[in-house]
Amino acid sequence: MTAPDETLPHFHAIIPAGGVGSRLWPLSRAEAPKFLHDLTGSGHTLLRDTWNRLQPLSGADNIMVVTGRAHRVAVIEQLPELTEANIVLESEPKDSSAAIGLAAAILHRRDPDVIVGSFAADHVIGDAPAFRRIVSEAVAVANAGYITTIGIAPTEPATGFGYIKSGAALAVEGAPHAQLVDCFVEKPDLATASAYVSSGEYFWNAGMFIARADVLLAQLAETRPALHHGLIRIAEAWDTPDRDDVVDATWPLLEKIAIDYSVAEPAAERGRLAVVRGDFPWDDVGDFSSLAKLLSGGRVGDLAILGEGARVLADSSSGVVVSQSQRLISLIGVTDIVVVDTPDALLVTTRENAQRVKAVVDAIKQAGRNDLL
Amino acid sequence: MTAPDETLPHFHAIIPAGGVGSRLWPLSRAEAPKFLHDLTGSGHTLLRDTWNRLQPLSGADNIMVVTGRAHRVAVIEQLPELTEANIVLESEPKDSSAAIGLAAAILHRRDPDVIVGSFAADHVIGDAPAFRRIVSEAVAVANAGYITTIGIAPTEPATGFGYIKSGAALAVEGAPHAQLVDCFVEKPDLATASAYVSSGEYFWNAGMFIARADVLLAQLAETRPALHHGLIRIAEAWDTPDRDDVVDATWPLLEKIAIDYSVAEPAAERGRLAVVRGDFPWDDVGDFSSLAKLLSGGRVGDLAILGEGARVLADSSSGVVVSQSQRLISLIGVTDIVVVDTPDALLVTTRENAQRVKAVVDAIKQAGRNDLL
Repeated sequence: MTAPDETLPHFHAIIPAGGVGSRLWPLSRAEAPKFLHDLTGSGHTLLRDTWNRLQPLSGADNIMVVTGRAHRVAVIEQLPELTEANIVLESEPKDSSAAIGLAAAILHRRDPDVIVGSFAADHVIGDAPAFRRIVSEAVAVANAGYITTIGIAPTEPATGFGYIKSGAALAVEGAPHAQLVDCFVEKPDLATASAYVSSGEYFWNAGMFIARADVLLAQLAETRPALHHGLIRIAEAWDTPDRDDVVDATWPLLEKIAIDYSVAEPAAERGRLAVVRGDFPWDDVGDFSSLAKLLSGGRVGDLAILGEGARVLADSSSGVVVSQSQRLISLIGVTDIVVVDTPDALLVTTRENAQRVKAVVDAIKQAGRNDLL
Repeated sequence: MTAPDETLPHFHAIIPAGGVGSRLWPLSRAEAPKFLHDLTGSGHTLLRDTWNRLQPLSGADNIMVVTGRAHRVAVIEQLPELTEANIVLESEPKDSSAAIGLAAAILHRRDPDVIVGSFAADHVIGDAPAFRRIVSEAVAVANAGYITTIGIAPTEPATGFGYIKSGAALAVEGAPHAQLVDCFVEKPDLATASAYVSSGEYFWNAGMFIARADVLLAQLAETRPALHHGLIRIAEAWDTPDRDDVVDATWPLLEKIAIDYSVAEPAAERGRLAVVRGDFPWDDVGDFSSLAKLLSGGRVGDLAILGEGARVLADSSSGVVVSQSQRLISLIGVTDIVVVDTPDALLVTTRENAQRVKAVVDAIKQAGRNDLL
């Protein structure tokens, strides 16, 4: 997979592999979260696909994975090339500022000139070469001192994603698609989203951040000094025998906050955030409606089927079937349906209601049935 | 259960327990057909409920069950009172003329004055005392020489049932609700059904037939002499050591025809068929839409749940869930849905499409997957 000529000097990829993906329950579970599933039928988990996309840019030795202790074995099984130095295990989830910030702080101690790029373990990207060209541009922009994100050129007025409003073009060599970020906007309604798409100024926020580690950490120190302090303390002990003691004493106290709020938005306000426009297909596969769309190649009205050895008998039905049991699944005359069949839980809903799946997960939590989560 | 004062002299009930109930797949299966299920949540199978309804009229010694060889054990388990003399096992299904005709012929040899009444093993009846009063009337009419059916006073313009058009009133002592049958009509469309209900002249055909066995057999001899001949041959050998040989030689050759066509319609044409109007709640529970209605007490917009220990988590959903697994079933925003969850097969459809379930069964047959039938 490695194409050494693509490898970027001082570039170190970070893969935060954390989120459960509640809206994909009961497929995605605490013990088998979204990133450990093959949602595209590629034959690889999303985590492995993420690794394969990044390895040509960083080399196998320069990809760090931040994940929960419970997922250590599964992650190593997926990524046998992953070195011990590149595994960061969280004793409990502390959101993206802590996860990415700790990785950046560790890597910065090892290489003061490191440029880190953080890429979710559970997104789907359709054109890996185009992705890598854009990351290369983003690394060039990061080298120039900006915290840099990749904005996906929207192909439709999606209401399920946040948007990035781009501003003035940046003159950075090797980065023809770089602009300053004007601001971030939350998930819009359909009319607003349509206006965004027409304007050409708005991109989807794919949550990818590329920056010199020192720049990223300085921004964090400015907006979240306590969190920054804790992360530096852990990073200083990381490659010493004190690691476990310091982690145990420090990690539980860290603030839980998304990196969007601790780093990206403040940086945008101060004119330090850049965006590189990416034209490659991207999806965060946030719910079963997205999954249905992804599996049917963007068409509607089809029945998409996911699952090894799935046995489905369908008559005038559309939507998505996810089969993890070996049972025969028969659908008759159900449209835009979502059926997720697992050994201990079955979900039946519609694409329209796909966002409401999280409510079921919350109800199960409240009922204390953690075995089903 | 027995109320001896209700017992009718010479009355012998017949329960044909044959049909699989394809439209209730995958709940109803070849190995566990509809009559072996508790579809009402009563705690009894439909077969047991049928027995309990009839026993006060006939006594436990005067109920004969005609069923397939494969169901012998299950039937006896449900009906421990059933005597060996009252079990008729079919080596292969030959439709209702052969099943009921053979029972009638056997019983006629044992008691030339027997009055037989045939009642499906898999219907639901809501008011057993009312049912028994009407059967008593029907027996009086049968005693007067008529082949007699019970017509259910329709409560709505159902399009899923056949109808009986009643004619002139009959003056039979003890049977104030008796009329001649004018004709049978097949399942009507909604407008026709509405007209039928308004007229007050039409009843639902519940497939119940009560007649002197000699009258029933004479009618069969007239319209289907070969079938009649075969049944008489078997009946003559039934209570002798020749039973098996004669059955093996004769049964496979018998014509397959519903008793509606071989006996009831020809008798109606000749003015020999009577109907007693029954006002009790009745349903043949022919499909999952009927089941949903039955379980929700006729209301719409509810979610009905059937299955011991069913675990269902539903949000703004309606329809019916049948759970035979111990899995958690979650429904979100699906209306008039039908979900049938069994260990090896799952069905998802809507009440509107409930009649189309048979097509799935046909497809499975064609695929040779008899294990799923």
